[in-house]
Amino acid sequence: MEEITKVAVDAMGGDNAPVEIIKGAVEAINENSKIKVYLTGKRDVIEKELAQYTCNQSQIEVVNATEVIEMAEPPVMAIRKKKDSSIVVALNLVKQGTCDAFVSAGSSGAVLVGGQLIVGRIRGIERAPLAPLIPTETGCSLLIDCGANVDARSSHLVQFAKMGSVYMESVMGIKNPKVAIVNIGAEEEKGNALVKETFPLLKNCPEINFIGSIEARDIPTGYADVIVCEAFAGNIILKLYEGVGATLIKKVKAGMMTSLRSKIGALLVKPALKQTLKAFNLEEYGGAPLLGLNGLVVKTHGSSKAIEIKNSILQCVTFKEQGINKKIREKVILKDE
Amino acid sequence: MEEITKVAVDAMGGDNAPVEIIKGAVEAINENSKIKVYLTGKRDVIEKELAQYTCNQSQIEVVNATEVIEMAEPPVMAIRKKKDSSIVVALNLVKQGTCDAFVSAGSSGAVLVGGQLIVGRIRGIERAPLAPLIPTETGCSLLIDCGANVDARSSHLVQFAKMGSVYMESVMGIKNPKVAIVNIGAEEEKGNALVKETFPLLKNCPEINFIGSIEARDIPTGYADVIVCEAFAGNIILKLYEGVGATLIKKVKAGMMTSLRSKIGALLVKPALKQTLKAFNLEEYGGAPLLGLNGLVVKTHGSSKAIEIKNSILQCVTFKEQGINKKIREKVILKDE
Repeated sequence: MEEITKVAVDAMGGDNAPVEIIKGAVEAINENSKIKVYLTGKRDVIEKELAQYTCNQSQIEVVNATEVIEMAEPPVMAIRKKKDSSIVVALNLVKQGTCDAFVSAGSSGAVLVGGQLIVGRIRGIERAPLAPLIPTETGCSLLIDCGANVDARSSHLVQFAKMGSVYMESVMGIKNPKVAIVNIGAEEEKGNALVKETFPLLKNCPEINFIGSIEARDIPTGYADVIVCEAFAGNIILKLYEGVGATLIKKVKAGMMTSLRSKIGALLVKPALKQTLKAFNLEEYGGAPLLGLNGLVVKTHGSSKAIEIKNSILQCVTFKEQGINKKIREKVILKDE
Repeated sequence: MEEITKVAVDAMGGDNAPVEIIKGAVEAINENSKIKVYLTGKRDVIEKELAQYTCNQSQIEVVNATEVIEMAEPPVMAIRKKKDSSIVVALNLVKQGTCDAFVSAGSSGAVLVGGQLIVGRIRGIERAPLAPLIPTETGCSLLIDCGANVDARSSHLVQFAKMGSVYMESVMGIKNPKVAIVNIGAEEEKGNALVKETFPLLKNCPEINFIGSIEARDIPTGYADVIVCEAFAGNIILKLYEGVGATLIKKVKAGMMTSLRSKIGALLVKPALKQTLKAFNLEEYGGAPLLGLNGLVVKTHGSSKAIEIKNSILQCVTFKEQGINKKIREKVILKDE
């Protein structure tokens, strides 16, 4: 385990770039001496920002990239045209083997498309799913796929289930993780065409601990560790989690401000409440890995602050140390052949 | 408007049947003299329960039905075999024109299937969507379809958008309601095959105020009045709303119990908080109509109490008075021809 994990970081991506991205990168190397970060983006901007920090210079390198892919650009076009963008340059570092992983808070579309086109999928993996951790009452679950492959087929979902299982077992340390498929009822005969086709395939997978269907209502309880779904459904789940959470917390705060009595109460409950709600904040869980690629690509929230960037970089170390891609090759692909 | 609205009510359906159902029915007729309720179910059970209430006898009638469709029964089979069940008997009252509407807290599957098979769709309506109201920061939105027709086609979604518009305008009094389609991004080129096909059709609908895509994150803010989606996605949205809400409120309560200080605070904020959160409770909005049928079928939550049954029955009066089905014929069908 003396090896260095080399992580390319998109210094220009996200709402808080470059300030928070660079801060997070510096915090990561200051916390773990076995990491080297490659910051991609405009050299002068990055170096000016870096100048204010003290850190081990041998752990950080700036790789110049003159272009930036904007959030609204059509991803495929952007990846093809902007060869000298911070995202494409970083993905090439992973492709060439200079880096093990890539972390970006930039355009989701560009990161997902670029990951598949430039880094490429592990031989035998049909689609690379985006798999964020989402908070539950008992800890967290892996939601797979949450936006990378709309209109997926049943064979893709089966691979997602296996990859998700490997991730939860190796990275999160959950023994024999429970796998469920998102459905509109608990019974086997329920569902749309895709779920009906996928259900028996998952049931006959000896490599995973398949527990059947999960209704969306039960996702926040922590009923399953790996939540398998097609990307359109997964994206709805991820974003609604965020939306309902934000609205409810706003309602709770407004409710506490309605009378003098409740305002005094609010002052008293605030610290305890803040602590509890923190555990239910999606952003606490760092980035979402795009699984099944020849290297690791991690997409963090567009509004990521330094803490999320740091956590995402540290996550790359676990990913490498645990040999996730080797395990995916062994458990997902070889079993299929 | 001197007409009587006649509502068949499934006295045997739901977790709290028959007690809460009958209580709700009695409360509805005591509140509005222009309603007549037909309670379907086991006559002896219903009459025994009814005996404890005072109400205008001419406003209530018991229609005997010896069978009950259980929650777990496969719906199509149950509707075909249990001809003398409280659901089938009630649906026949609507079909024959004895009743204008039907309210049930029983098996969703049986109510949806039975509504389509027995009451039947308005001529020209391709599918009948289930359309609950969901709470938002600014009021409520109509989610259409939330579970009736999985694997719907684009032409179905266009009809859902039009029917939803009629409902929000006529029943909820929202002028020129904003219609959006659930998508995984705001741009027109995003989405799965169904959304990409439906988007331009909605854009070219002069009868509705189409505002484009809505991401799940923005649903709770009240960004759109009518939220159009395929049933699988709609079911996830409805159930996750419930699930995230329940978990967060549990977390808030637990957070308040962590120290003596926060416990005292909790006592002070409780009344105000209860009031605010009530407005964000799905169950406050009564039943979900199955739109586009020759009559009104309303499905209420399986755990409905008297208040929801009462509200659902009263909702049938507005539906009839506003001539929703006539408007659907005019605005959805005739325009298509």
